[in-house]
Amino acid sequence: MNSYSINELSVGQSAEIQRTVTEGDLFVYAGVTGDYNPVHLDKEFAAKSIFGERIAHGMLSAGFISAALGTQLPGVGCIYLSQDMKFRAPVKIGDTIKTVVTVAEINTEKNRVAMKTECFNQDGTLVVDGTATMKPVVK
Amino acid sequence: MNSYSINELSVGQSAEIQRTVTEGDLFVYAGVTGDYNPVHLDKEFAAKSIFGERIAHGMLSAGFISAALGTQLPGVGCIYLSQDMKFRAPVKIGDTIKTVVTVAEINTEKNRVAMKTECFNQDGTLVVDGTATMKPVVK
Amino acid sequence: MNSYSINELSVGQSAEIQRTVTEGDLFVYAGVTGDYNPVHLDKEFAAKSIFGERIAHGMLSAGFISAALGTQLPGVGCIYLSQDMKFRAPVKIGDTIKTVVTVAEINTEKNRVAMKTECFNQDGTLVVDGTATMKPVVK
Amino acid sequence: MNSYSINELSVGQSAEIQRTVTEGDLFVYAGVTGDYNPVHLDKEFAAKSIFGERIAHGMLSAGFISAALGTQLPGVGCIYLSQDMKFRAPVKIGDTIKTVVTVAEINTEKNRVAMKTECFNQDGTLVVDGTATMKPVVK
Repeated sequence: MNSYSINELSVGQSAEIQRTVTEGDLFVYAGVTGDYNPVHLDKEFAAKSIFGERIAHGMLSAGFISAALGTQLPGVGCIYLSQDMKFRAPVKIGDTIKTVVTVAEINTEKNRVAMKTECFNQDGTLVVDGTATMKPVVK
Repeated sequence: MNSYSINELSVGQSAEIQRTVTEGDLFVYAGVTGDYNPVHLDKEFAAKSIFGERIAHGMLSAGFISAALGTQLPGVGCIYLSQDMKFRAPVKIGDTIKTVVTVAEINTEKNRVAMKTECFNQDGTLVVDGTATMKPVVK
Repeated sequence: MNSYSINELSVGQSAEIQRTVTEGDLFVYAGVTGDYNPVHLDKEFAAKSIFGERIAHGMLSAGFISAALGTQLPGVGCIYLSQDMKFRAPVKIGDTIKTVVTVAEINTEKNRVAMKTECFNQDGTLVVDGTATMKPVVK
Repeated sequence: MNSYSINELSVGQSAEIQRTVTEGDLFVYAGVTGDYNPVHLDKEFAAKSIFGERIAHGMLSAGFISAALGTQLPGVGCIYLSQDMKFRAPVKIGDTIKTVVTVAEINTEKNRVAMKTECFNQDGTLVVDGTATMKPVVK
């Protein structure tokens, strides 16, 4: 894990994490959030939905973004102020999601950085994008 | 679970879900997202942080928002287009979070609704707020 | 979630929930109950059993019944007095189980209802059936 | 683990397992069954219920019964035919539940045994009782 203060950051700096989304992840995520939407958990229901199969919770990708921000860049000790995100494409069971976070703007006076936050699947398709505002650790 | 099409929604309509956040939830959430930030998992580290104790992942509350939107209002069959959120106050272990989602704007032509999304703790403190854009189910 | 008092119930009223049973569910269920029977967890052992493959714990379906009763019908606030059930057919990994609970008898004087409780797989095969006795919420 | 055929069983023979019910167990059990009843998961809601605090899912104890039957007596290889149970008293977070299963009747011709199934808390209070019908392994 990393931990950068604002003076150690520069625009364009980026970090990434990657993991495969499993069927079990959807069930565990449902358990811990209460998000029992059948499009995530019910194979028969999902087969008849517009996705044609079960898809991951969009907010699971948001968790990957939080992981990349909080453990890699700006990293440990930062405070998460806000996030906006657009869900661009479904994540399916077995997809491997690469989450990339990139420093977009630095406001040293307020100790705030804007981070571009993107998730891609194994085919390079953008599945989630957005922007986070973070307060990096003060050392 | 509910499932409303756009014609069954009206501005001001709201739904809520509520659950207690446990220590175990933080570990399970970390496991499924990879968000191993020690402020959530390391009691000793967190005791020295500005929060003074372990706090929940902000994105866990985002999961509650997704649960409320996807299972209650607009409910099953809706598509999650976007979410913005501000993290207003920390959620601590043992807090009971009420998540309230409220129809804010209806665009029948595009089949889109803007939903106000808020999470409160047991003292009524706003911990997360924001806006979601949803495409309700077409019946 | 619903919450019906006895006066809001009528014989024949029913509710259902549905979800797919995953391999991960069997391991999580084993962990939380201590039911480590190898017919559920050991692929090699189960292949040589009369089922020919791993099957779900029968009591996992009982959990679905409890979920349907406690959150849908009679719903939140009811008290679970008793349950009998027969295990009719095995549930396999990947099966999607529909749990149907139906009001069978109403005893207003004692504030008790008998509920027919049934679980079916995706082929319509009855896997569990039985009867529950519930005390609905008093409003 | 044990594995008894019908000729190795005698009326009055018993076995027991014991474990402590934790807060985390309730959340994990809810996740794997979908039983999100707030009396189990919502501290604020449960405080106002007739129980005065969160209680365990009754069917969690049913899982302990299944564990005792399937791994201890009659043990591995048996087939679970039916179970009836009465929920006598609530199980609270932190309770240690002893599950006792006892051979009550033996029908060698049909290869069936009736098992008395009981769960007690640490104070000796009977929380669940009932009867199971099992088909022991054929060796």
